[in-house]
Amino acid sequence: MYSDTVTKLINQFERLPGIGHKTAVRLAFYILESPPQVAEEMSKVLVEAKQNVKFCSTCFNLTEKDPCEICSDKKRDESVICVVENVKDVIAMEKTHEYRGTYHVLHGSISPMNNITAGDIKIKELLQRLADDKIKEVILATNPTVEGEATAMYISRLIKPLGISVTRIAHGIPVGGDLEYTDEITLIKALEGRREM
Amino acid sequence: MYSDTVTKLINQFERLPGIGHKTAVRLAFYILESPPQVAEEMSKVLVEAKQNVKFCSTCFNLTEKDPCEICSDKKRDESVICVVENVKDVIAMEKTHEYRGTYHVLHGSISPMNNITAGDIKIKELLQRLADDKIKEVILATNPTVEGEATAMYISRLIKPLGISVTRIAHGIPVGGDLEYTDEITLIKALEGRREM
Repeated sequence: MYSDTVTKLINQFERLPGIGHKTAVRLAFYILESPPQVAEEMSKVLVEAKQNVKFCSTCFNLTEKDPCEICSDKKRDESVICVVENVKDVIAMEKTHEYRGTYHVLHGSISPMNNITAGDIKIKELLQRLADDKIKEVILATNPTVEGEATAMYISRLIKPLGISVTRIAHGIPVGGDLEYTDEITLIKALEGRREM
Repeated sequence: MYSDTVTKLINQFERLPGIGHKTAVRLAFYILESPPQVAEEMSKVLVEAKQNVKFCSTCFNLTEKDPCEICSDKKRDESVICVVENVKDVIAMEKTHEYRGTYHVLHGSISPMNNITAGDIKIKELLQRLADDKIKEVILATNPTVEGEATAMYISRLIKPLGISVTRIAHGIPVGGDLEYTDEITLIKALEGRREM
C-alpha cells in the first residue's frame, strides 16, 4: 500500500506512546504534504533536544545543566527529598507551587511482572544521597498503583533504619470528586487516612 | 515550567494535526527519556522521507518515482480519472481493489471560509490532463461536505463543455448502517439516489 520510505516514516510515529497505526499514518502524511521546512525543523529539534537535555546527576530529573535548577536552587529545602516515579511527576508537583524541597526521580517502579527489579530504578542513587546528614525527610510520592505501593514499601524499609523520617503522600477522594463514583479502594484509603477536624 | 529546548520539542509535536498540548508533552518526554538512537533515527527518517517522497507530476499523488506507480502502470485504464481531495483518499480507493483507472489529487477543496479558492488546488492541472483525447470519464470523489460538494460542482461545470462524461460517487446509507441513526441529509441523498432493483 505505502512505499518503503513512507512505511518507515509511519513506523517511526507508531513507536511513540499512545500513537496507533491510523494516527501514525495521519501524522506521516501531514509531514509528507507539508513544506520541507516542517520535517527539517522537527528533525533538527529532535536531535538538539536529545543532545542538550540530560539527566541531573543528583536527582535524575531532566535538565539542560547539571546539577538541575531545582538541585542548585539555594532557596529550596535540601533536607526534604520527594521521591517520584517519573520526570512528569516532578512537573506535576512543581505546578502546585507548594513543595519547596528537592526531588529524586526513580525512572520507574518495581514491577516483577515487567522484569523491573529494585536494581533497575534509581534506588541505589537515592540511598547514596541519604548518606548526607542534611536529609531529614523522604516523601514517597510514587503512584498509588500496585507497583508504586510496592516501590514505596521497599524504599521505606531501606530508609527507616537510617533514622530518617519516611512519609507517604495521602490517598483519598480527589477534590471535586464524588463519593458515589469513587472506587472502593480509594474509599478505603480515604477512610484509613481520616483526620480530626 | 519546561526549559527552552524542551518547550521547542513540545511545540514541534504540538504542530502535528490532532496532537494537543498534553499529548505533545507526553511524546516529548518519551523522546527525552529514550536512548539517543530513538531521536536520531526519527530525525533521519523525517528528512529522508521528505527528500525521497515527491508529488507525481501527473496526478499529484505522493510517490518516490515520477510519474507515480499508478500513472505509469500500463494495466490501468487511462481513460478514467478519479478526482479526490487528498492523498489519503487515493489510498482509501486503492484499498477497495475495484477501481482500475487513474487519479487526480486536488490537495484540498474550494473553501471561501478558509480562503482556499479554485486557484489554490490542482484544478488547472486537471484541465490540462483533459486536453488529452484519451480521457472519457472524470469521477468526482471529493468528500460529501459543503466544500467537497462545491468543488465537485465547480469542476463539473468546467468539464461538461469539453464533452467528457462527469460522474459523482454515490452518497447514501453506509453498508451496515442503520436508518434510525442516519442523519437527515444522508437519508435525503439515499432517497434521491435510489435505483431500480
